[in-house]
Amino acid sequence: MTHESQQFASDNYAGICPEAWAAMESANVGHAPAYGEDDWTQRAADAFRKLFDKDCEVFFAFNGTAANSLALASLCQSYHSVICSSSAHVETDECGAPEFFSNGSKLLVASTADGKLTPQAIRDLATGRSDIHFPKPRVVTITQPTETGQVYTIAEIQAISAVCRELGLKLHMDGARFAHACAHLGCEPADVTWRAGVDVLCFGGTKNGMAVGEAILFFDPALAQDFDYRCKQAGQLASKMRFLAAPWVGMLENGAWLRNARHANRCATRLADAIIEVADVEPMFPVEGNAVFLRAPEALLEYLRAQGWRFYTFIGGGARFMFAWDTAPARVDALAADIRAGSTFAQQAAA
Amino acid sequence: MTHESQQFASDNYAGICPEAWAAMESANVGHAPAYGEDDWTQRAADAFRKLFDKDCEVFFAFNGTAANSLALASLCQSYHSVICSSSAHVETDECGAPEFFSNGSKLLVASTADGKLTPQAIRDLATGRSDIHFPKPRVVTITQPTETGQVYTIAEIQAISAVCRELGLKLHMDGARFAHACAHLGCEPADVTWRAGVDVLCFGGTKNGMAVGEAILFFDPALAQDFDYRCKQAGQLASKMRFLAAPWVGMLENGAWLRNARHANRCATRLADAIIEVADVEPMFPVEGNAVFLRAPEALLEYLRAQGWRFYTFIGGGARFMFAWDTAPARVDALAADIRAGSTFAQQAAA
Amino acid sequence: MTHESQQFASDNYAGICPEAWAAMESANVGHAPAYGEDDWTQRAADAFRKLFDKDCEVFFAFNGTAANSLALASLCQSYHSVICSSSAHVETDECGAPEFFSNGSKLLVASTADGKLTPQAIRDLATGRSDIHFPKPRVVTITQPTETGQVYTIAEIQAISAVCRELGLKLHMDGARFAHACAHLGCEPADVTWRAGVDVLCFGGTKNGMAVGEAILFFDPALAQDFDYRCKQAGQLASKMRFLAAPWVGMLENGAWLRNARHANRCATRLADAIIEVADVEPMFPVEGNAVFLRAPEALLEYLRAQGWRFYTFIGGGARFMFAWDTAPARVDALAADIRAGSTFAQQAAA
Amino acid sequence: MTHESQQFASDNYAGICPEAWAAMESANVGHAPAYGEDDWTQRAADAFRKLFDKDCEVFFAFNGTAANSLALASLCQSYHSVICSSSAHVETDECGAPEFFSNGSKLLVASTADGKLTPQAIRDLATGRSDIHFPKPRVVTITQPTETGQVYTIAEIQAISAVCRELGLKLHMDGARFAHACAHLGCEPADVTWRAGVDVLCFGGTKNGMAVGEAILFFDPALAQDFDYRCKQAGQLASKMRFLAAPWVGMLENGAWLRNARHANRCATRLADAIIEVADVEPMFPVEGNAVFLRAPEALLEYLRAQGWRFYTFIGGGARFMFAWDTAPARVDALAADIRAGSTFAQQAAA
Repeated sequence: MTHESQQFASDNYAGICPEAWAAMESANVGHAPAYGEDDWTQRAADAFRKLFDKDCEVFFAFNGTAANSLALASLCQSYHSVICSSSAHVETDECGAPEFFSNGSKLLVASTADGKLTPQAIRDLATGRSDIHFPKPRVVTITQPTETGQVYTIAEIQAISAVCRELGLKLHMDGARFAHACAHLGCEPADVTWRAGVDVLCFGGTKNGMAVGEAILFFDPALAQDFDYRCKQAGQLASKMRFLAAPWVGMLENGAWLRNARHANRCATRLADAIIEVADVEPMFPVEGNAVFLRAPEALLEYLRAQGWRFYTFIGGGARFMFAWDTAPARVDALAADIRAGSTFAQQAAA
Repeated sequence: MTHESQQFASDNYAGICPEAWAAMESANVGHAPAYGEDDWTQRAADAFRKLFDKDCEVFFAFNGTAANSLALASLCQSYHSVICSSSAHVETDECGAPEFFSNGSKLLVASTADGKLTPQAIRDLATGRSDIHFPKPRVVTITQPTETGQVYTIAEIQAISAVCRELGLKLHMDGARFAHACAHLGCEPADVTWRAGVDVLCFGGTKNGMAVGEAILFFDPALAQDFDYRCKQAGQLASKMRFLAAPWVGMLENGAWLRNARHANRCATRLADAIIEVADVEPMFPVEGNAVFLRAPEALLEYLRAQGWRFYTFIGGGARFMFAWDTAPARVDALAADIRAGSTFAQQAAA
Repeated sequence: MTHESQQFASDNYAGICPEAWAAMESANVGHAPAYGEDDWTQRAADAFRKLFDKDCEVFFAFNGTAANSLALASLCQSYHSVICSSSAHVETDECGAPEFFSNGSKLLVASTADGKLTPQAIRDLATGRSDIHFPKPRVVTITQPTETGQVYTIAEIQAISAVCRELGLKLHMDGARFAHACAHLGCEPADVTWRAGVDVLCFGGTKNGMAVGEAILFFDPALAQDFDYRCKQAGQLASKMRFLAAPWVGMLENGAWLRNARHANRCATRLADAIIEVADVEPMFPVEGNAVFLRAPEALLEYLRAQGWRFYTFIGGGARFMFAWDTAPARVDALAADIRAGSTFAQQAAA
Repeated sequence: MTHESQQFASDNYAGICPEAWAAMESANVGHAPAYGEDDWTQRAADAFRKLFDKDCEVFFAFNGTAANSLALASLCQSYHSVICSSSAHVETDECGAPEFFSNGSKLLVASTADGKLTPQAIRDLATGRSDIHFPKPRVVTITQPTETGQVYTIAEIQAISAVCRELGLKLHMDGARFAHACAHLGCEPADVTWRAGVDVLCFGGTKNGMAVGEAILFFDPALAQDFDYRCKQAGQLASKMRFLAAPWVGMLENGAWLRNARHANRCATRLADAIIEVADVEPMFPVEGNAVFLRAPEALLEYLRAQGWRFYTFIGGGARFMFAWDTAPARVDALAADIRAGSTFAQQAAA
């Protein structure tokens, strides 16, 4: 298959990047102890500790739904609540997983324009009710970058963590595309996480080029107590753990995690730049990660579909395009050309 | 690494078999829709339907803990109970996962000599209490082969399913090593499952040569209603599903699932045969699958450890050896030789 | 204590009405079998069946949080969702109980002006998403009367149940103050429940004059299967059940349930009527049940507090007054007089 | 009804004692704030603090199933386990409630002759497994007196709490009949609870003469953090709390709790003494509380049934008789006489 078939409906459409694949191949030699007692798991955990310059506790889960839900469940009890944005993946796309893993913790959602929580929104939700009839807020979760591709600055995270500490809340970061945020910010992973006050990070591997797998990093080891039991009970402990861990070694030890993310981000910018002057088309959000959300007339979107493009749409006319580690720039250009052509088509149709 | 390093503490120590690997490699080309909308997932499900000669509903989960727990949870409510053997993996080694996924379903355990449930044991547990203060029995789960390597015959399963139907119980089969049971029985998978009255089967891929992944087969489609939502909520829906599905294609379409199991079983028999005359050593259970449990003096076990062998032991002196798709017969022979030498050593020590 | 001490912050402030008390006293004679095997429990269930002209299944729970949550949990699985109004008690005041009892079912809230769901709002929520990443809608819950005291007409409920049937949703009614709705509508309980398409009703006893206790009525017996086990497991099966059941006998057999509700409703109307011309004060909602929500200047509310009145307030200046079976009309008049005086006071303060 | 109708199948058959009733009557005057903000709740909590000579945290739940399950859930996470006797009520008669409230905590049962856990049994269960595949022991629960009526001595509890502290386990006491244990021991409640190392006590009110209600006492306030939210979410917060609290005032402030228990215990002893010489009949357990378990021939039991007696029987021929605060000694004598007559009858039948 060549890049002509690439679709940008989701960054989950891409396969396994060479570095992750090579590490799996290296790991697939002979025998190794099960359940994380192997060398690859140790090496992957150490790679995270080095990358974050922190002796954190590292766990591996199969996917982001589980990683986020387990992390949140470990930070609160069933009668507590979790503050998040109304567009947070945990609220909109995990089929009630956070509530399931926590046995009932309620999500308190703040309506936000761009998916970013603010200190004020957190304060409002955390202090709006203090009676026993309402679940007590205990955790804040932010998605970095947000589901629409905006990246919290270090200062923004510091401000959020300050209000969290003031109000006795823990701060969790859903980093399904954490690498893309780092690529955008050009900062050390530590600066935008524990140094900025994040307690727990779910670092996404799948969207970064792996087949499967997310890492959960507890920067405060005390919060990780018995988390291994929690993973096991919840069906998230891989028996042949080396195959969940080795790809991380491949990604982290040679910088593929960042290269992949930078490439995906650049493809997003490439599309955004290419359509900047196209009539009736405009980005719905600043393009900071690997996503481009375009507001466009339905006729244009219909034109794109007729050309074979697949993408998610949203109420009000938006279309989402997500780029991956393997996106071919030529294919982005082809999309941009079709958008341009579609715009003309749509204008003629409307005339 | 050569086979000199092979250990038989667990069949999870083995890696990915060539057929599964090749399929993953084939799948890692270009883009594919996420969450099971891809061709590989369809093809894997169809392969199961062909293998079982049944238009069953097929789901893929990451590991056996999740597959079994989700299947059991789908068959009962929190106030129901699940009948199993006292040595069932769901009771002894899943850290309360069945209780967690079902939100409280209790396991009712029957003490059994060989890990096999009997119709009488099921009847006793299912009818012992009928008051509201005790969770109502709704499901029977059997492990095929049992955790100690015994294989239910088709007639035994038929007898169990008959009592299940009589008492209004569903029948679940934990087939973490289902392939090994088929290899032992030499029967069609259908004969030992749905044709014998099994409602749901969890077919293990990991111990059969895959990196990760179990399949859940509902032979009665009505029981599978909304099971896809259940998997999603519980963190068991892979985004890049093709990598969970493709290995199954590699395993099923060319018979690797059965070849792998036969090889593992033969290695177990090879060991059992080789130590048949060794003094003070005897199999604790009939060797029907890929496991050999040996009763042996502690001095002998100590000797083996000194030679570098790793294995699990049990109260009373037993040692477990599990063989995999890649077990080198020469390595089995080396173990047998060490057992023989250890026996002599132990006898001298005792003298 | 005389009525001078009565407060209208909540209808839970009232005690046990004479009819409920007398029945408890009658029940407190000699010995009776436990766990609902007694005559009082049978008699109470029969009284419900007679009142509703329906051979329904009747269960008794300790409070409304449990009754509603158990009923909802019985109508869906953890990966399903429940449609409710944004002001529904299950959403705002049960500390995540529905999510806890159901092990994760998400509430989908419709913003409503008056707390009433509409067929269109239900349709929008039920059909907005149909992908696996979002919990599948399975139940609609309406509060009758709503938390702000509006009563669904029979026609409104029929329209809601029609859309429920069309979309495969079950219809649950939170009747914490169901008696007050019947008193307002002047209809048979059957007309506003099962005859209008309601599947399950939680009929509140506490706010109607009992010490404790709610009844759960399944109009479709099939939905009640094993619900007794569900109650038991969830800590809602009273051992000395006669004391939970007898008050219902006292309430239902002689019409106290309706008399109490009528009295409370009349008191609400009495207050509303009395302040109709008071400057700067107006009802926030139509007064149809036993609640009056008043929009009033903060200075007026402060004045009322200074006179010793207790009440809940809401963002934007609202104050809630709830009337009970024992409310003394003279005390309502006293409140009205103080509101009038407070209005004058507030106007002078503002001048 | 006169005492001729008294049955001893359960101490839940008895009604409400005069002291509890009078307190409820006193509480049923005028209005009182809801959800425990009333004076009666404060007074009841204070009465417990005085009785236990300890500034403990006190909560009120509707029944023992909930009280025990909530307390255990507060002491562990879903992946932890609870050590109990095989005859513990939480294991045998709560329909999986502990697993439900805790979202999956497994009960580890020790087979015991008399229902009493021993330090050795606890140690064995707590240290038998330490791998991640088995839920980590975190709590020990003992029933005082046991389900068969044996009372732990202070020294026994001290020994148990010592091993708990050593192994990092919390100690919970199911005191469904705690008063009866105190009556038997003749000690201060503090001596057999917190002074002996108990962390949390569920003090049963129902079997002690109340209509409904159990108290949960946290002797270490830190363990009680947010327990009020836990109760609320789990449907155990009474709105008209005064009616759950007032009976405790009636029971505790004037010693009724102890008088009632002493009376019940004496009735048990009265029966045991009266049948001491009866042929073929013997107590199965020492009579220390308000229960008498008799081993007797089936013909004798059949004779008793024919005389109208109701009682629970057990595999192997045992019959249980439980005595309450209101048991008429003459009725005990009547039972004893019938046992004597039944014995003669059974011997003749066997001859």
